[in-house]
Amino acid sequence: MVPGPGIARTQLPPGFTCSGINSGVRRYRPDLGIIISTEPAVVAGVYTKNECKAVPIRYCQRLLPAQNIKAIVTNSGQANAATGALGEENNLKMAEAVAKKLNCQTSQVLTASTGVIGIQLEIDKIVGGVEELVERQGHTAEPFALAILTTDLVPKTVSTEVELSGGRVHITGICKGSGMIHPNMGTMLGYFLTDAELSIPEAVHLLTEATDNSFNMVSVDGETSTNDCAFLMANGVSGVRLANLSDEKKFLKALEDVAQVLAKSIARDGEGATKLIEVQILNAPTLPMARQAARGLVMSSLVKTAIHGCDPNWGRILARLGADQVSKDCLSKMELRIQDILVYQKETPLSVDLSGLRNQLKSDTVLIQVDFNSGDFNATAWGCDMSKKYVEINAEYTT
Amino acid sequence: MVPGPGIARTQLPPGFTCSGINSGVRRYRPDLGIIISTEPAVVAGVYTKNECKAVPIRYCQRLLPAQNIKAIVTNSGQANAATGALGEENNLKMAEAVAKKLNCQTSQVLTASTGVIGIQLEIDKIVGGVEELVERQGHTAEPFALAILTTDLVPKTVSTEVELSGGRVHITGICKGSGMIHPNMGTMLGYFLTDAELSIPEAVHLLTEATDNSFNMVSVDGETSTNDCAFLMANGVSGVRLANLSDEKKFLKALEDVAQVLAKSIARDGEGATKLIEVQILNAPTLPMARQAARGLVMSSLVKTAIHGCDPNWGRILARLGADQVSKDCLSKMELRIQDILVYQKETPLSVDLSGLRNQLKSDTVLIQVDFNSGDFNATAWGCDMSKKYVEINAEYTT
Repeated sequence: MVPGPGIARTQLPPGFTCSGINSGVRRYRPDLGIIISTEPAVVAGVYTKNECKAVPIRYCQRLLPAQNIKAIVTNSGQANAATGALGEENNLKMAEAVAKKLNCQTSQVLTASTGVIGIQLEIDKIVGGVEELVERQGHTAEPFALAILTTDLVPKTVSTEVELSGGRVHITGICKGSGMIHPNMGTMLGYFLTDAELSIPEAVHLLTEATDNSFNMVSVDGETSTNDCAFLMANGVSGVRLANLSDEKKFLKALEDVAQVLAKSIARDGEGATKLIEVQILNAPTLPMARQAARGLVMSSLVKTAIHGCDPNWGRILARLGADQVSKDCLSKMELRIQDILVYQKETPLSVDLSGLRNQLKSDTVLIQVDFNSGDFNATAWGCDMSKKYVEINAEYTT
Repeated sequence: MVPGPGIARTQLPPGFTCSGINSGVRRYRPDLGIIISTEPAVVAGVYTKNECKAVPIRYCQRLLPAQNIKAIVTNSGQANAATGALGEENNLKMAEAVAKKLNCQTSQVLTASTGVIGIQLEIDKIVGGVEELVERQGHTAEPFALAILTTDLVPKTVSTEVELSGGRVHITGICKGSGMIHPNMGTMLGYFLTDAELSIPEAVHLLTEATDNSFNMVSVDGETSTNDCAFLMANGVSGVRLANLSDEKKFLKALEDVAQVLAKSIARDGEGATKLIEVQILNAPTLPMARQAARGLVMSSLVKTAIHGCDPNWGRILARLGADQVSKDCLSKMELRIQDILVYQKETPLSVDLSGLRNQLKSDTVLIQVDFNSGDFNATAWGCDMSKKYVEINAEYTT
């Protein structure tokens, strides 16, 4: 696996191109991106569970899953959410402009948006940019990855290869996300591209599985966006299918690995973040409880601020687990480790070298392990610390 | 109604005294307080729903409701939560020391604690302070109100009188709370004292009703404490009972008013807060939905930071309502007003004077009104903006 960015460039799988430009909506940064498949591709999508869904989300939900998709166009800066009938029109214009340029049906073009909620798209600028956008297409992921960013500091791309029984296939993942991150389905925007040949049911299943253990386990601030979505786009250019169960497992593992690298990169790039927090819940009686406990800890403001201050105030971890209705039985059997140091066991605080632990917390990755000793289910969640910068960014986002 | 503090002092109802001292646990600030009733009092309690309950919470749950309570002793700085068997022993020692000094049974003395979770009480200092504590008792609320503070900036007291058919009775409310505020039952620590003569069922009913519409509708940071509790203590010294339904309504109204003044003072004094946020949900189809929507908005980091920055980014309000599973029907009929200015209606953003709205947001109280036009249920919640100071306070609390 080769994480981008940096000097290295992330190559797209064969049969995909992408591009990103400034259409004039944002002042300096690229704000319009596209992913194009040379062949009509099988695409599955997962979407935010927010009841207030953005226009492009509802548009993609109507079209997907499908097997004839040519492109996904994405704009940043304006979310096209809470925009009424005019928002619907503008979304369609964006897809139509791309379809015209690519010489395909409008229904073969997906859309996604990210940015400020409640303002209309500057659709003339966007439509006016489509020609240049399509003409600039190339074989690396970065131009697109840059065009979809909002408060992110770094583009997020990763690629890998999998050796299946019929030959080698490629997977590239691209995503954006930094604030309003508490996905409940897809997430922010995520795109998985592969040259493997997948059926629609396979694509749906693989995408759902991979996001449940990655994007759905990240939280920056407990806020679920109106625009979260993730797509798996398979163009079949390799001619290699998932011929057996072993192939399917290998492919899912690779897809999950890609998704987890992206999920962690979102957490690490969380608004104002200085550290990645990884929470492992071990031996819980049920999977939902393990997941809820893990997500609860990474979204706790008090845990996030304590870790920001390298403050070994682990009582806040206990308080949060109790607030999230972890059962008394689990709490009584739990062992709590921070950076591999056992601090609480059998309902009793242990005598710990606090200044040593404080030093351990200075690391740029902090590991919290909670072992409930009450079952067989594990879950991992990722988040980030909370700094004054988070407040600064979010007190000044639209203005 | 006379809100304290300041120059004015809050008088306790007849038959109550209180006191607060420094026992040596905290360096400079008072850290031990007591409320004493001259007559055995009827007491009801409500408690945190956190599964990880502090020792004094479990102790009071065993004793209450009761009709023979003489005192509530409270220490600050150490929460006596997650402290195992030694924590139980220490809690009992605290109650015993007070009972001995007051010449009553240990079971007539309630306890409460607030402070850092996971460290043992410095019980010798606390027990050593009890004699001075009891001897200093007086008739104003402030010494106690000061002794129970942690990160609060101001003591929180209020008193009122109610004219019932049998005569006049008094109610005094005292509370503390500034962070880890997202009560799910009582809240932080709250004490309501009255010289009315109440039965146990009356006390339980009145306290539950009053806290549901006040303390349970405040959120500073979405974190539910291990130590939240509120008590209603009625010593009957006035000889005035709730003789009829009208008396009961009047008394409940007065108690709710007291509780709401305290709830708002907690929100306004939230860690790092510069503004009070009041959210009114109007005409919702159910009461639980109205309450959840109201609480969801006051706990949203993105709404709180936007208001801190006087940023009229109301899309975040919509996003949060959708994330909290407000129904599509409600969202389609909703009207959103900020500082009485209509910004969104019929699924469409309105053209609004944004710089005027930005000026309105500079007020130290911000009102958000969401009218769902879908039913008869209303709810109000209180919270505060999120500033860099919140992060500072919580990155450095134990150290």
